[in-house]
Amino acid sequence: MSECQNCHVCDDADKTLRDFICGLNNVETSEHRVESQKNKCKFGKDGVCCKLCANGPCRITPKSPRGICGADADTIVARNFLRAVAAGTACYVHVVETTARNLKALGENKKPIKGMYTLNKLANMFKIDEKDDHKKAVMIADRVLSDLYKPRFEKAELVSEIAYAPRLKKWQELNILPGGAKSEVFDAIVKTSTNLNSDPVDMTVNCLTLGISTGLYGLTLTNLLNDVILGEPVIRQANVGFKVVDPDYINIMITGHQHSVIEHLQERLIDEDITKKAQAIGAKGFKLVGCTCVGQDLQLRGEHYKEVFSGHAGNNFTSEALIATGGIDLIMSEFNCTLPGIEPIAEEFEVKMICVDDVAKKKNADFIKYSYEERENITDSIIEEALKSYENRRKDVTINIPKDHGYDDVVTGVSEKSLKDFLGGTWKPLVDLIASGKIKGVAGVVGCSNLTAKGHDVFTVELTKELIKRNIIVLSAGCSSGGLENVGLMSPSAADLAGDSLKEVCKSLGIPPVLNFGPCLAIGRLEIVATELAEYLGIDIPQLPLVLSAPQWLEEQALADGAFGLSLGLPLHLAISPFIDGSAVVSKLLKEDLTDITGGKLIIEEDVIKAADKLEREIIDRREKLGLN
Amino acid sequence: MSECQNCHVCDDADKTLRDFICGLNNVETSEHRVESQKNKCKFGKDGVCCKLCANGPCRITPKSPRGICGADADTIVARNFLRAVAAGTACYVHVVETTARNLKALGENKKPIKGMYTLNKLANMFKIDEKDDHKKAVMIADRVLSDLYKPRFEKAELVSEIAYAPRLKKWQELNILPGGAKSEVFDAIVKTSTNLNSDPVDMTVNCLTLGISTGLYGLTLTNLLNDVILGEPVIRQANVGFKVVDPDYINIMITGHQHSVIEHLQERLIDEDITKKAQAIGAKGFKLVGCTCVGQDLQLRGEHYKEVFSGHAGNNFTSEALIATGGIDLIMSEFNCTLPGIEPIAEEFEVKMICVDDVAKKKNADFIKYSYEERENITDSIIEEALKSYENRRKDVTINIPKDHGYDDVVTGVSEKSLKDFLGGTWKPLVDLIASGKIKGVAGVVGCSNLTAKGHDVFTVELTKELIKRNIIVLSAGCSSGGLENVGLMSPSAADLAGDSLKEVCKSLGIPPVLNFGPCLAIGRLEIVATELAEYLGIDIPQLPLVLSAPQWLEEQALADGAFGLSLGLPLHLAISPFIDGSAVVSKLLKEDLTDITGGKLIIEEDVIKAADKLEREIIDRREKLGLN
Repeated sequence: MSECQNCHVCDDADKTLRDFICGLNNVETSEHRVESQKNKCKFGKDGVCCKLCANGPCRITPKSPRGICGADADTIVARNFLRAVAAGTACYVHVVETTARNLKALGENKKPIKGMYTLNKLANMFKIDEKDDHKKAVMIADRVLSDLYKPRFEKAELVSEIAYAPRLKKWQELNILPGGAKSEVFDAIVKTSTNLNSDPVDMTVNCLTLGISTGLYGLTLTNLLNDVILGEPVIRQANVGFKVVDPDYINIMITGHQHSVIEHLQERLIDEDITKKAQAIGAKGFKLVGCTCVGQDLQLRGEHYKEVFSGHAGNNFTSEALIATGGIDLIMSEFNCTLPGIEPIAEEFEVKMICVDDVAKKKNADFIKYSYEERENITDSIIEEALKSYENRRKDVTINIPKDHGYDDVVTGVSEKSLKDFLGGTWKPLVDLIASGKIKGVAGVVGCSNLTAKGHDVFTVELTKELIKRNIIVLSAGCSSGGLENVGLMSPSAADLAGDSLKEVCKSLGIPPVLNFGPCLAIGRLEIVATELAEYLGIDIPQLPLVLSAPQWLEEQALADGAFGLSLGLPLHLAISPFIDGSAVVSKLLKEDLTDITGGKLIIEEDVIKAADKLEREIIDRREKLGLN
Repeated sequence: MSECQNCHVCDDADKTLRDFICGLNNVETSEHRVESQKNKCKFGKDGVCCKLCANGPCRITPKSPRGICGADADTIVARNFLRAVAAGTACYVHVVETTARNLKALGENKKPIKGMYTLNKLANMFKIDEKDDHKKAVMIADRVLSDLYKPRFEKAELVSEIAYAPRLKKWQELNILPGGAKSEVFDAIVKTSTNLNSDPVDMTVNCLTLGISTGLYGLTLTNLLNDVILGEPVIRQANVGFKVVDPDYINIMITGHQHSVIEHLQERLIDEDITKKAQAIGAKGFKLVGCTCVGQDLQLRGEHYKEVFSGHAGNNFTSEALIATGGIDLIMSEFNCTLPGIEPIAEEFEVKMICVDDVAKKKNADFIKYSYEERENITDSIIEEALKSYENRRKDVTINIPKDHGYDDVVTGVSEKSLKDFLGGTWKPLVDLIASGKIKGVAGVVGCSNLTAKGHDVFTVELTKELIKRNIIVLSAGCSSGGLENVGLMSPSAADLAGDSLKEVCKSLGIPPVLNFGPCLAIGRLEIVATELAEYLGIDIPQLPLVLSAPQWLEEQALADGAFGLSLGLPLHLAISPFIDGSAVVSKLLKEDLTDITGGKLIIEEDVIKAADKLEREIIDRREKLGLN
């Protein structure tokens, strides 16, 4: 099935969602705009368009093989690619910085610590010798912040505490260890400016360094710091989809990636005086409705937020439709992925928008700058605005929530720790299942959702089905997991879609064949799993029968994630080329030569079956090298 | 005259250079490629193309007014523009950071301080109470570095020490004061990522903050720190153009913006033992040949480097032709503007290339990472390579230097200090000349050179001629000055091209009507002049009869410069739109509304006479408001 013949809405793995979108009147969503933006610029797709200077834009063609300045396709592609990876790294590093500052403030203000296990784990990791837990939290945060702010020529210190030793050695040999993460991003932006670096190899290799900063700081550490502040994930079942929206409550939709920023709000919303305020205007109370990664993170930690969190409605390209249900009363955003497309819909449905970080300021949103010191006032303002919005809009707006959308039994709360605990505190059961061949291998199907790789979540869902059919267990984190859970692949019954031996494993353990690690940040958790498996086996990460796919990558952040995967030495599949096809040098480096450098390999394959074939081949190769058949 | 009918080389204000380029065999320069890149993408030009995500590229048209995510033309234009300004700021901040680190190392190693006046000026400015000059240098450097590395939420401290008080007050009122410069850039990159900020006003105003970081740190402070390390400019006459290349010497062409990085090399090249090494292989010794801004900076400080510096050959788009003279033996680059186009020409003419900062690594260059500690070894390596290159190539390569190219009497060494000294230690004479109307006003014609605003330096030269004809004195800094000096406009005889009263002033003082402040970094000096004039008159900067034009802006750095000009409240002309025409909101904000915000105004005008008319009008308006006729 491709686009809808009546309304031109693009295809969607989630048929209920698609029907809902097709049925909307006078509401335009991203799914509608795929059609009007279908003519793609070939130069842009190939990465050979340069808009950096006033002599341009220049475009590389066979008849014009160089831009005016002399930059050729290799230089232009590598420059565009490095700049994109740098921006992606910047986004994740912004998130870890905010998280570290919140942890520091929590420690300084001696507020409750929800994740004592992780606090001590980090303190051990960082060799912090301190008894007082709050001081420990401050010291951990300071170590992180100090690294982020180092100049580029000073190597980041925590890398050696966090990274897996064989990888650290490899990165040292390759001279790709990062300096201060913010300075690494900064200099990559400089490097990709006009008439500066023109060396495609240097720029492409630079992406690996940014990948390490992204993976260890933006991903791994953000998760762990959040675990301390917000509580560690606990495996449980949860409901997902539009059915989580209960119109009897004042519903605050949250979007972003900086969960620690809404920590105070989520606690306050269920205080009795606040509930009473809601009741005074006819609601039962307040609920947070999850959307994008911050919702996925709340779901992951849902055990600690049962009362306030109604559940995760869906991923990035679900958000416009979610607002169009009419059930949302206020949108609170603190980062991406907050689509500009929600603005007119929020206006149409009279939904107040508030942003708390100016990097994410939406055009028609109020801006209230978040700070730990001001959090009580900020929470008060948001609650006041939500009350006002509820009162104003509920008399005007029709609510239309497709209650059959979603599932009630999504297995969530999976983390490197909860999974290992589930397995009895050791990776042995999983390793044995892999060794015996019952589980052929592990695939991380991660990252964003886009609308152009066959439609909304289509490639992700089809590839995942294909992999589990081949007895490859799938781990997911990011908007990909939002898509997979909304079509039932993270419910235990999905075991029936797996190959015989994986099905048997799932049934005996009562788990689905697709494990839900939560937000894209949790790609870092998945990579901790990889590290711990390698450690258990005494091998390096590239030897594991483990592959990555970010089939429907969308944003520059996904490219930074991907660069970490490649630094780790993992095969990484993308269904859409990251705008590098115009350069033979960059393509060969990432698709072929990298195998001999980090062990990683970029696989670009737009066909689902062929992608599954290639990923399975990588797994089988690794099994064979490990002597498994 | 437009493109050459025979070889399609674009027009050039410098006819000798153009004839030389037209006469080249089998050498392709940027001037040749203007023709093959003449089909410009309208979406790129208008700024309405977005390549940030895998749903794209998206392009805004009347039929597709939003990208898939919902971003409209205003969001896309503002996002592209802010990212460009941020990258430009990053480049300048990288330069000031390197310079501050070199000053710090100089202080710590107790090496000679060449600019005692500026050392004390900075110490006073920063309220540093210290007797020892080397300690003073270290403390100054530390203050700068500390500000650069502050988080964004901590305001940069030196702003209040450097900025003009009425401007500081205005910026405070507008809430546009910058935090740490590197974090400002960093967050602007985050802000301009997909599904983050969508507010065109917020993003455009953010450019002003980056402008302040650029202007006060990247421009003003880089000049002053360099004055301490390298010596203050002294007004003198110098030779320019290809004639500065003497084939009897081993010629090292330098490109970049980080003059302090080559300080050790330039001292060592004239040591007796090194000269003897050159003589042993048949050369008279070593010479540095200036090209791009670092050459312009060496020219500016030429009084201190008479022996080693042969003179400034030309600006960015002169560099390819300069190599094609065959007279260059080694290219040493440390930053932009080092065109990728020089790579095949350097290969053809067997010229060794060495880069000392990886942000500027050229494809076929050796990379030797500069550090103060290793400077002696680095200098040795460069000298060894230059000796080898000279010996190898001189037997193969024909040298063809157009000796009639350039001038011998370019007035250089103009700075805020040397100019005031020249005027007798007070701005009174200049103010009197302006008040009397003999000088109608001041125009800073600054920034890059591009090839698309009528050809190489064509718009810059024509506009300058038009302005001086109208008795407006022109101050220049950047590649623009490289163009202006190579066509004689910075020689005293150019007075004849000025209007009657300006001509009289020039003749009586023995100066040209176009004053040469040197590299683009010295736009900061020009803005110190503006500040001191305003201070002398007791008015704010926007009240001065002073305008800016960066007619042939090329790079993102020029946009960051421009953002500073707009923050200062000055009218700023560009001949080519900075890719904002697709947004009515951004265009109106910068071209109209800004007048009531900072006092600044963006003027985009591609016709020389109309541009001169508009700039003159701005000057006359300001004269009238000051009660001058």
